[in-house]
Amino acid sequence: MAKGTSLSGFPEWLPSQRVVEQRIIDTLRKVFELNGYIGIETRAVEEGSSLLKKGETSKEIYLLSRLQDLGQEKDVPVERRLGLHFDLTVPLSRYVVEHSNDLTFPFKRWQIQKVWRGERPQEGRFREFVQADIDVIGNGELPDHYEVEVPLVMLSALEELRAFGLPKPTVHANNRKLSEGFYRGLGLEDIEGVLREIDKLDKIGPDEVANLLVSECGANQDQARACLDLAELTADDGEQLRQRFDALVDKVGIDKESPAYALAIEGLETLVMIIDEAARIRPGSVIADLKIARGLDYYTGSVYETFLEGAQSLGSICSGGRYDNLASQGNRTYPGVGLSIGLSRLLSYLLAQGAQASRVSPAAVMVAVWDEGDRTASNHIAQDLRARGIAADVAPTAAKIGKQIRYADHLGIPYVWFPAKEGQQEGDQVKNIITGEQVPADLVSWRPDSLYARQSVEYQA
Amino acid sequence: MAKGTSLSGFPEWLPSQRVVEQRIIDTLRKVFELNGYIGIETRAVEEGSSLLKKGETSKEIYLLSRLQDLGQEKDVPVERRLGLHFDLTVPLSRYVVEHSNDLTFPFKRWQIQKVWRGERPQEGRFREFVQADIDVIGNGELPDHYEVEVPLVMLSALEELRAFGLPKPTVHANNRKLSEGFYRGLGLEDIEGVLREIDKLDKIGPDEVANLLVSECGANQDQARACLDLAELTADDGEQLRQRFDALVDKVGIDKESPAYALAIEGLETLVMIIDEAARIRPGSVIADLKIARGLDYYTGSVYETFLEGAQSLGSICSGGRYDNLASQGNRTYPGVGLSIGLSRLLSYLLAQGAQASRVSPAAVMVAVWDEGDRTASNHIAQDLRARGIAADVAPTAAKIGKQIRYADHLGIPYVWFPAKEGQQEGDQVKNIITGEQVPADLVSWRPDSLYARQSVEYQA
Repeated sequence: MAKGTSLSGFPEWLPSQRVVEQRIIDTLRKVFELNGYIGIETRAVEEGSSLLKKGETSKEIYLLSRLQDLGQEKDVPVERRLGLHFDLTVPLSRYVVEHSNDLTFPFKRWQIQKVWRGERPQEGRFREFVQADIDVIGNGELPDHYEVEVPLVMLSALEELRAFGLPKPTVHANNRKLSEGFYRGLGLEDIEGVLREIDKLDKIGPDEVANLLVSECGANQDQARACLDLAELTADDGEQLRQRFDALVDKVGIDKESPAYALAIEGLETLVMIIDEAARIRPGSVIADLKIARGLDYYTGSVYETFLEGAQSLGSICSGGRYDNLASQGNRTYPGVGLSIGLSRLLSYLLAQGAQASRVSPAAVMVAVWDEGDRTASNHIAQDLRARGIAADVAPTAAKIGKQIRYADHLGIPYVWFPAKEGQQEGDQVKNIITGEQVPADLVSWRPDSLYARQSVEYQA
Repeated sequence: MAKGTSLSGFPEWLPSQRVVEQRIIDTLRKVFELNGYIGIETRAVEEGSSLLKKGETSKEIYLLSRLQDLGQEKDVPVERRLGLHFDLTVPLSRYVVEHSNDLTFPFKRWQIQKVWRGERPQEGRFREFVQADIDVIGNGELPDHYEVEVPLVMLSALEELRAFGLPKPTVHANNRKLSEGFYRGLGLEDIEGVLREIDKLDKIGPDEVANLLVSECGANQDQARACLDLAELTADDGEQLRQRFDALVDKVGIDKESPAYALAIEGLETLVMIIDEAARIRPGSVIADLKIARGLDYYTGSVYETFLEGAQSLGSICSGGRYDNLASQGNRTYPGVGLSIGLSRLLSYLLAQGAQASRVSPAAVMVAVWDEGDRTASNHIAQDLRARGIAADVAPTAAKIGKQIRYADHLGIPYVWFPAKEGQQEGDQVKNIITGEQVPADLVSWRPDSLYARQSVEYQA
């Protein structure tokens, strides 16, 4: 990534790296559309009032000023200024409300766009990056089967990326209602606080989290211990999850007649449904992991994080959840569930793992030019090849043929086409500059060998 | 476009409109890559010093402020602040200089991205829009045959858009050296000023331009008249262009021994080469039109605008030119030639002309759900269809079948799949809800009729 960071936090890729990013985007889009998700794009800009409404990242936004208004913008309240979106969920909520009369609900959408976060430059984090999101938004209500569909679609998209070197992904799911019911059942009240501290488990470890639960959230040692016990609970199937949760409830002594317990069971049953249905459709892909908390405060039900086998230090590469209260208009609410891939970080990882373009140029063949006076003939040959779908370039100059071949070689173009020279008997020839094989070729029937036909992404383990 | 403008100047499309935009982008990319152009993406953000360097639009930029630095940014000079790019040419120049050691020259690149202009909101112009650019950048030198290649590639891309309702495009070409040599030959010295006024011809007409040439550029009436005569000159082929130019030079009495004349002839011969070679490869697609000026000051040779038959009021939809001095590093310069499509304006036009998606959803088939208990079976059917590349959705609820069909219908999904009911003899059936035809179908062999297989863009004349 050395090449990508001339401005700290704003990654930029070399052409061969961009090929990998583009193919990842193409692949995700293909899978999303195969599953009936509709592509939209929202403007990069939202009003401050939208950006400031929800979530902890709302403080890390970039506001815009017209150069010509410089110095006057301080008179405008932040809520009425424009800023760059920091995710694709807040813009989706605004889009859905704004266009609700023109959409069919449940609205299943995919969206792959850049987002911006006005982080401190020195933190070495991305300030501009690409997110790839899918969400399903209901009008008034949203069936809970979408809470298993959305992670399954993401998993099938991520599975396709294994061809580029992605390790096996597993979605870890939890449910906010389960957590909240459990915490309330313990007698805790600062639910958001507890979730915020539990979210730090992977970073600071259980002892530190326990201290914070005590110092920040009003927990006693037993309550803190019980929260950590819950966070340690995982399960592969619904029955196992029910049993382990039940055992823990008994151990910590939560009242099974309480509203808190009822809330926890509501969340538990959704989670059971998710992991059992996921196991039927894509076995071993989704597990219950009750430490998953998600810092953002807008989730109200399922929450998800996605980890790659052998790449735990990367953290979650695809996160999300169900949010029932993010979008509303008058009495109407638009509950949603979604997942978001942090695509730029994932790309950095794949590039570091050795994912690479098979060649820099999309061209499969470069037509040589014997003499600048013959360029028209070479242009015609290239045109004929393109008309048959074969990507073709033409040599930049009528230099010595070795120099022309070097240009093709630098770009990874596998074939060089030699037009017949006027007055000579032999016709056109084409040379595979990787294998060295040179053969007569005609414009009507020649095709590149399938191995060399298309620019692709390779992964060398 | 009524739906696209809840924030003035920031267009946003409904799903069915976005399909058209996405297909235009796909088509342009396909043609660019077929011609060996390499796709890159640059960060959305540039330093103020880059943005302010060139061109008249540099005053219409958006600067960024981190929310947390609010109030302090006024201490930072604009040159050291970050702003959103207003085109893709300035970022390309910066990218090429920064990565010159990793690129092969001539570097042929395509780039399709959003750009932003901090225009006044009330002008009703786009402040966020998509540009689609191709450029060829040389290292030290750039052969002039790229000055005909670039418009020809753009034309072949635009020709593909005729399937979406685009009228016939024609590139109008001129050359800055021709204009400058002619103006200097007349004794005029404020060349940029004259070009700026000539650029207004279509907007304010020849009489107003003549007045401005006199009042702003120090021209007398004869000189102003001669400038307008030059602007009226057009030609379809090189010989015609030479003759008409020669006749005009004689008429206005330019000295054929002067350096000014030599400069004009240098530009003329490049223009002759362009229109003659274009006529050989794509007859009738490029004409010489000596009123083309381009306001931006960085062009040094060829300049282009592109007009659509019967849509003159739309103005140029694709403009550009050759720039020899935009990028440099020490003694090294990176001359370039490029063209840029204003894609959002073009999309608005095509939508207004009736371009539309064949359906909102990418899904070809929706699998019905008889009962929520059967959802797993419907999910399995959808999975099997997707595994064969058939985009499939599943009904959102196990509602009455009429309601399920209406959901598919709203999204334009042409087929509804009815899973076999347990205990009944008949197997799965599939119904084309457009034709009403319902037939038995099996998961291994059924395919949608090719007419309905893919979401596409239609154009109703």
